[in-house]
Amino acid sequence: MKRYGAIEGGGTKFVCGIGAEDGTIQDTVSIPTTTPEETMSKAMAYFAGKEIEAIGIGTFGPVDVHADSPTYGSVTKTPKPHWSGYDLVGYVKRELKVPVGFDTDVNAAALGELLWGAAQGLQSCLYMTVGTGIGAGAVAEGRLVHGLTHPEMGHIIVRRHPEDHYGGKCPFHGDCLEGLAAGPALEARWGVNASELGEDHAAWRFQSYYIAQALMNYILILSPERLILGGGVMHQAHLFPLIREQVKELLKGYVHHPALDRDIDRYIVSPGLGDKAGISGALALAVKAAEA
Amino acid sequence: MKRYGAIEGGGTKFVCGIGAEDGTIQDTVSIPTTTPEETMSKAMAYFAGKEIEAIGIGTFGPVDVHADSPTYGSVTKTPKPHWSGYDLVGYVKRELKVPVGFDTDVNAAALGELLWGAAQGLQSCLYMTVGTGIGAGAVAEGRLVHGLTHPEMGHIIVRRHPEDHYGGKCPFHGDCLEGLAAGPALEARWGVNASELGEDHAAWRFQSYYIAQALMNYILILSPERLILGGGVMHQAHLFPLIREQVKELLKGYVHHPALDRDIDRYIVSPGLGDKAGISGALALAVKAAEA
Repeated sequence: MKRYGAIEGGGTKFVCGIGAEDGTIQDTVSIPTTTPEETMSKAMAYFAGKEIEAIGIGTFGPVDVHADSPTYGSVTKTPKPHWSGYDLVGYVKRELKVPVGFDTDVNAAALGELLWGAAQGLQSCLYMTVGTGIGAGAVAEGRLVHGLTHPEMGHIIVRRHPEDHYGGKCPFHGDCLEGLAAGPALEARWGVNASELGEDHAAWRFQSYYIAQALMNYILILSPERLILGGGVMHQAHLFPLIREQVKELLKGYVHHPALDRDIDRYIVSPGLGDKAGISGALALAVKAAEA
Repeated sequence: MKRYGAIEGGGTKFVCGIGAEDGTIQDTVSIPTTTPEETMSKAMAYFAGKEIEAIGIGTFGPVDVHADSPTYGSVTKTPKPHWSGYDLVGYVKRELKVPVGFDTDVNAAALGELLWGAAQGLQSCLYMTVGTGIGAGAVAEGRLVHGLTHPEMGHIIVRRHPEDHYGGKCPFHGDCLEGLAAGPALEARWGVNASELGEDHAAWRFQSYYIAQALMNYILILSPERLILGGGVMHQAHLFPLIREQVKELLKGYVHHPALDRDIDRYIVSPGLGDKAGISGALALAVKAAEA
């Protein structure tokens, strides 16, 4: 069976892995995210001699995903030191001399879930991660969604919960979705890590209100056939029923579909690939790159 | 040159037209929207003997746009009397015996603008209409966006302007975007038709705040390469600079792209096809149906 490389590039670590076109991951290694040169040379050492057909990179952004752009495959302007302008795809292509698939971490995860996870057999889905940040990627009509740039769905405007007086933590927007509902916002608002808040804590009413508004807007704008919620904060499994209930409450029956009317438990779900959604998504990009 | 039929189905009138594959419209007629049987038999009488290759229908919704659904081409559950369940595509196919393209009015308009209007040469765009209702359609990666159903972007949640105490007019959601910013909401809030409000009226501050929030969320979720704003309310040309300014203010430089940083006047624009965006979009659906 052919072997493919996968890189899930995150703010604190780069996970590298080897897998097959059926989605199985055979091996992974984790490399701390330091400078691009250091991080990527360790990644290349991992792939050396592994005879991969192609490699996929799903990474933190913002990145240039326009295939016809002169800076395609580079990190664009980021507050993260050293990484602005770094040419990820160019470097990997020069080192490994195989086709390189490239997208955001969340777009990669959405593709992985569509091929092998919770959205198998569908033509569209949305993958959202709620962790140290909030991001989402989407497949529509069978294709990963890009346009002017790539989506940045974590920063949409949501209505504030009337009882929530926390100012918000997004350095750009203050109280956008990420500013109100990512892990660091929860911790700043309540003074403890989200995992230490009891299931009946008021935090979860706020949290489900914000996440549900985001899902409502994603449904109304993209109409994905499945909504997949991952990331550290979503390990709080009790959030799922709260979010589903809020989504129904907000939509007020406006969009008619059995997925919303009757089967919402199977519509808003955890990643089918669990915490492997990211690395599997990068593998999916590799498989697509080999086909192209 | 081959001839194609086009139907723009609206709540008060159905516009029928004949056009060519270069997007020119040679003739149109307007039929009042009464019962489906009456309206559509008049439409069929218009097309009789016109020797069209195919026909496109862009219509008010909600409609079933799933090609593999048993009720494909029908109006789904609508508060509009007589129209729930009406099989538009089935009737037209039986009567005219030509390929039928079918989508929402706003998706059709988005496609028309992409082929022949303000988004020519691009792979993505969003067309939004602000009139008696608010709706938007989108092309992403060269394809009209559908999924679970079709988008219903006019009903997204926006944050209320702190000085706006109007309750909202959406029968489903009260103060969703449409409930706060469609023509009837303006008229109910201010007591006169929007066209009678002076350019320095407070109405436009509220209006640009709401529309800009919608555009910000559309940008962050879909990343369209162009935003095209049509419909009766957008005839107020002075709204455009207000909206562009608000969008920049809300985004706070988070998404870097020349279209937003420098060229926003060419990014958020009027329909290139003017008030013909709808009927041209239906023509575009006809041309696509003939190709398929």
